[in-house]
Amino acid sequence: MAAIAPLERLVNALSRLPGIGSKTAQRLAYHVVAQDEAWVRELAESIYNAKKKTAPCPVCGALSEVGMPCALCEDPRRRRDILLVVENMRDVVAMERARDYNGLYHVLGGVLSPMEGIGPDSLRFGELMDRLKDGEIKEVVLATDPDVEGEATAAYIGQLLRPLGVKVTRIAHGVPVGGELEYTDELTLNQAFRGRREL
Amino acid sequence: MAAIAPLERLVNALSRLPGIGSKTAQRLAYHVVAQDEAWVRELAESIYNAKKKTAPCPVCGALSEVGMPCALCEDPRRRRDILLVVENMRDVVAMERARDYNGLYHVLGGVLSPMEGIGPDSLRFGELMDRLKDGEIKEVVLATDPDVEGEATAAYIGQLLRPLGVKVTRIAHGVPVGGELEYTDELTLNQAFRGRREL
Repeated sequence: MAAIAPLERLVNALSRLPGIGSKTAQRLAYHVVAQDEAWVRELAESIYNAKKKTAPCPVCGALSEVGMPCALCEDPRRRRDILLVVENMRDVVAMERARDYNGLYHVLGGVLSPMEGIGPDSLRFGELMDRLKDGEIKEVVLATDPDVEGEATAAYIGQLLRPLGVKVTRIAHGVPVGGELEYTDELTLNQAFRGRREL
Repeated sequence: MAAIAPLERLVNALSRLPGIGSKTAQRLAYHVVAQDEAWVRELAESIYNAKKKTAPCPVCGALSEVGMPCALCEDPRRRRDILLVVENMRDVVAMERARDYNGLYHVLGGVLSPMEGIGPDSLRFGELMDRLKDGEIKEVVLATDPDVEGEATAAYIGQLLRPLGVKVTRIAHGVPVGGELEYTDELTLNQAFRGRREL
């Protein structure tokens, strides 16, 4: 079938989104062109505006609205003596959804990964050190993912922070709530056993 | 967590796409804002252009580029004496992918569905009748889906076309190639049996 150029272009653009294969991209593209123009304009504009009107907060690195103070850094109800270090913005959203943590965040923007050429200079380590200078933060919680890169990154930050005398902790690993022991992998089970607590 | 307005707007717009739930929409939105501006602009523009620069062909109803002759209607290599009637543009794409049919198409734009208020006036029946007037088309193949609405729509078109003396056929129903008899539903098995052919 002869290609319809504007549609092909859309299918290509949509296929670059994570988790969207070429069949899904085609289905979405036909859906888009079948909608009325206002609907399509809203979708296109919201994509462009989300990029143009947001930027990482210069302090914590979490996504913020351009020209607005970062809602997480500025919130007077949050504790300012504890800092949770995460890999990316989605981790901040996940922690906030859990509604338990009420301190500050520091978004690294990734993890150390020599294979992908991501070294200490690519991550927000310098900004982290700067935030600890005035001594207001008493505890840094390392909440990188419990995978190889995440553990290595946590260990690296631990070494960086040791000379500063600040308390450094790591989030607990173990059997997820609602999970089943028999389906839990060996590494997690080992961590769950080692991290056992008295009842 | 305090809402980031431009991001919320994008998550809302993305969640209106078929098969995209709120979690996927959020994941896609964070992915989008993490890309560089040229990438995001290409996505936004391709969405808007796909809508602005395409329109249904006034003859066959298949999606075409605005200001360009419909590639399906104008192709001189296609037979002009046979017309395949389908529900929507995605059906045209599926038939073309099968690479066997080489005639003309007629896209109805849906099926009769009294429950959803879609009557004969909402579909491209008038345009279909117009195309048959000059007698060039000798056979009309009804290829609406083999579900309740598709069968009803095929039956309705059959009645419309009978007075015109044109040959009207319906695509075959049966066990799909590569399918297994034991997992095939009863209606399909009945159709497969009734449509049996001598070897």
